[in-house]
Amino acid sequence: MKQVSLNDIKVIELNKISTNKSGEVMHYIKRSDIGYIDFGEVYFSWINYGMIKAWKKHLKMTLNLVVPYGSVRFVFYLPDEDKFRIEEIGYKNYKRIVVPPGIWFGFKGIENEKNLVSNFSDVQHNPNEVMQVDKNKFIFDW
Amino acid sequence: MKQVSLNDIKVIELNKISTNKSGEVMHYIKRSDIGYIDFGEVYFSWINYGMIKAWKKHLKMTLNLVVPYGSVRFVFYLPDEDKFRIEEIGYKNYKRIVVPPGIWFGFKGIENEKNLVSNFSDVQHNPNEVMQVDKNKFIFDW
Repeated sequence: MKQVSLNDIKVIELNKISTNKSGEVMHYIKRSDIGYIDFGEVYFSWINYGMIKAWKKHLKMTLNLVVPYGSVRFVFYLPDEDKFRIEEIGYKNYKRIVVPPGIWFGFKGIENEKNLVSNFSDVQHNPNEVMQVDKNKFIFDW
Repeated sequence: MKQVSLNDIKVIELNKISTNKSGEVMHYIKRSDIGYIDFGEVYFSWINYGMIKAWKKHLKMTLNLVVPYGSVRFVFYLPDEDKFRIEEIGYKNYKRIVVPPGIWFGFKGIENEKNLVSNFSDVQHNPNEVMQVDKNKFIFDW
């Protein structure tokens, strides 16, 4: 099995379409897009300002992360590379992050009182394919 | 082909999971859920307070609508039944509306300055399968 690297994480620009003053349309993911593998589940996760959810690692799931409201700092970590990778996305910097399985990650709300993450994944939620460790297991200056 | 009815629209309760003070997780749709047919595309549509987007009718697409932020009034219309159906959903009344093809619909932002709709659909955006008429084509007291 190929060793996963932090360089395998893809960050994809997404379109915001502003047709009139009633409100924008923002792309997320479609079947023909980079990052689409299969459909398992899509869900939302709110992250309050200054709060951190960390660390998780999926064994099978590829994540497709977007932040339609607010702004969120995602931090990715691989013990083998002993390196962190930081990506900040949100409404004002609207992108999708594609995260292959095998990478530790956490995230922090950095703009609004509440910030909205959505994850589109190729497998349904299954506690057997996700590992979780305490926030202080990997020391990062959030 | 079976005639579609406003009664074919399904409104499904969704779970909000509040594990701690960092922010809730909210379900949207998974492969085994009612309303899942196939995956084509998922996107967001902001609707500003008091603004209305109407009317559209999809010929092939089944819509799965959620409102993770704010609150939105959806109105569905069938000329054959000469009847409107109204469903208001949002963060405080968190549900998913499954809309089969063949039904006219529109929506209005009714809570925050900006309200966030997401649609998970079984086909990718295609202008050939969507009909659009002016807001005043069907008279409704929004």
